[in-house]
Amino acid sequence: MGIIEGNAVLFTQGGPTAVINASWVGVARGLMNTPEITGIYGSIHGIDGILNENFVDLRAQNPETLEAITRTPATALLSTRHKPSDEDNKSMLNVFKKYNIRYVFSAGGNDTSEALDIINDAAKVENYEIRMFHLAKTVDNDLMENDHTPGYASAARYVANAFRGVDMDNRCFGGIYLGVCMGRHAGFLTAASALGRTGPDSGPHLVYVPERSFNIDQFCNDVEKIYTKLGRCVIAVSEGVEDDSGVPILQCLSSGKLEADSHGNVQLSGTGALADALIDRLKMYMKEKGVVEKLRARGDTLGYIQRSFPDQSPVDREETLGLGLFAAEQALSGNKDGSVAIQRVSDDPYKITYKLVPLKSVAGKTRHLPDNHINEAGNNVTDAFIKWGKPLIGELIQFGLLDQSKAVPKIS
Amino acid sequence: MGIIEGNAVLFTQGGPTAVINASWVGVARGLMNTPEITGIYGSIHGIDGILNENFVDLRAQNPETLEAITRTPATALLSTRHKPSDEDNKSMLNVFKKYNIRYVFSAGGNDTSEALDIINDAAKVENYEIRMFHLAKTVDNDLMENDHTPGYASAARYVANAFRGVDMDNRCFGGIYLGVCMGRHAGFLTAASALGRTGPDSGPHLVYVPERSFNIDQFCNDVEKIYTKLGRCVIAVSEGVEDDSGVPILQCLSSGKLEADSHGNVQLSGTGALADALIDRLKMYMKEKGVVEKLRARGDTLGYIQRSFPDQSPVDREETLGLGLFAAEQALSGNKDGSVAIQRVSDDPYKITYKLVPLKSVAGKTRHLPDNHINEAGNNVTDAFIKWGKPLIGELIQFGLLDQSKAVPKIS
Repeated sequence: MGIIEGNAVLFTQGGPTAVINASWVGVARGLMNTPEITGIYGSIHGIDGILNENFVDLRAQNPETLEAITRTPATALLSTRHKPSDEDNKSMLNVFKKYNIRYVFSAGGNDTSEALDIINDAAKVENYEIRMFHLAKTVDNDLMENDHTPGYASAARYVANAFRGVDMDNRCFGGIYLGVCMGRHAGFLTAASALGRTGPDSGPHLVYVPERSFNIDQFCNDVEKIYTKLGRCVIAVSEGVEDDSGVPILQCLSSGKLEADSHGNVQLSGTGALADALIDRLKMYMKEKGVVEKLRARGDTLGYIQRSFPDQSPVDREETLGLGLFAAEQALSGNKDGSVAIQRVSDDPYKITYKLVPLKSVAGKTRHLPDNHINEAGNNVTDAFIKWGKPLIGELIQFGLLDQSKAVPKIS
Repeated sequence: MGIIEGNAVLFTQGGPTAVINASWVGVARGLMNTPEITGIYGSIHGIDGILNENFVDLRAQNPETLEAITRTPATALLSTRHKPSDEDNKSMLNVFKKYNIRYVFSAGGNDTSEALDIINDAAKVENYEIRMFHLAKTVDNDLMENDHTPGYASAARYVANAFRGVDMDNRCFGGIYLGVCMGRHAGFLTAASALGRTGPDSGPHLVYVPERSFNIDQFCNDVEKIYTKLGRCVIAVSEGVEDDSGVPILQCLSSGKLEADSHGNVQLSGTGALADALIDRLKMYMKEKGVVEKLRARGDTLGYIQRSFPDQSPVDREETLGLGLFAAEQALSGNKDGSVAIQRVSDDPYKITYKLVPLKSVAGKTRHLPDNHINEAGNNVTDAFIKWGKPLIGELIQFGLLDQSKAVPKIS
């Protein structure tokens, strides 16, 4: 039951991250020196590459190029959002048999884990030994069994840096800054906006996540309170916020021209509509309430740059390479399958471990921000979240603020 | 005509940059050890701090805090968009006299240079010796007499990094990515999107700047050509693009709900409208032309993060600290006034020099991308631009791409 001779295939599926390459390069390095692994194949464009038998020889790649690839955002194996049908799963198993593929490693979301599980079950029925590994991957951080997922920390680092920068910018003039972050059902990435706060009056002052229903009036009221106190307010909002009956806020506020993807999900990324609509609403509210006639208010949508900005969290990078190596070791150690999860051993010192969990345990489920990471009012994160998130994103540049108490005496 | 005893005031005006603090801290350091400079004052919120006599003692600040401030984006002196009236200019001169302020240093755009020039002329009439210095500052890079302005290179570094990241992301699935960059009249920052290209098929494949009129049909046609060839297209567009009769494209495409700032300029930043409208138009075009029924197309607006992201170009940082020091030296060397410009001595090795130019020479004028930086079709930058821009942004991470020619032979 040790090593079975055959080929390995590595592929990536779904939305990429800034470290997804590190996960499959980690696997490739872990298999490289095992002669029983006759070929290490990279499937191009995820499962489409398997279905089309479009494989690249990863052993033939220049090691320096592979090293550079680990530092390159998005996936050099390219990707697809093709959700495999029953027919596709059958076809893939046939390709695996045809190419004597005995090891499968896929970096993907919970959809991918589900597909691997289905193929695995079918292979068992046919008595074809195959070792299926799912490598966690998502900036949304919404996979079950994981303390955090590879890719999250780098995206979180970007979001934290973006917000600490715009918070400084917002101080200059006052007014409102609202940034919409990725996160359809899980608020981890939006919450990361708070990880770069520098002082007690630092933004974001309000953080709205999809785990809590979003009430537009309450939102306006929250902003008014901060604005009245500080003359400014920085706000982070998840793209996926919904009202208490589950209707996306974008839908509540917009004309309803919304696009669905091939999984039937409404398009929330790649449009500035939610930020613009919330800003319009805030301006109207502040005017009607007589707070300020013409509110200086700006909304940005952080968009795709969140997952592809070339500034990996060093923690994310090391953990992801390690996760790939761990998957390779597991695959070589026996007839195993599973999803490699990152679990936290301790907060201080920060320490993690890898654990192989059943494919089924992450398939088709969504992990949410724990309750104790969200404040009671549902408009901010808690210290517990900050404590959890800080070790993930690496060092940030230390900011300085002027000591305004050292004032020059006025001449009367 | 050497040093005149009195106080110095430093202030920042208009939109901040990632290095604007380095410019005034550079000045403060340059004045710190000169006993004739009795006080070094920071005016809070630009000219508003002068009008309200709201000054902070910069000599009393902790040097470590000042060092941290040089690395902090936006301005720790805070800012204003208040454009001084004739009355304000008179009031400011009175404040300068009241506080025995003999040295004025302002980091601002060309509006600021104009105001300093007016006050300077008025001071001369009254025989009040005052030395007025304008420190170039703008991410737009649109100041006359400057090879480039402090702040541009850091914003350019961010834009280059953002585009090289999203270009990798765009490869994964194909389709269209469009990013709208800051730049109302000058295309320097949008052009910087091309500075991180990694290979011959790297995006951005199309770059539209305000220096050339923007034709919507031609744009769709340009995109179609690239998309048909590569299955993807990454596009950078300046927020300020206009049609051939000078109407902003956002206005051509949108319902016309546009907001003007206190200078009468239409609001182009802080809204995702242009990106969304261009993406909608592209989808419609590609469908009508039968190229693709449902185009995968995403638009992001890079927004305020462009000028505040905490990742300074090391070149920008050093040059900006140096520019502040140079201004201080000039001020201490005689009864001078002027704007400190960065001029390029040579491309290879990259070398610059500081030059004191008349305030009037930068006041109220806009510098544009030179003709030889834009290609003939008006839809891309040239090698001349890349050669000019590369030395400014510092080292970027080296990316790697898989060698797909090393394919696994298909089994028939």
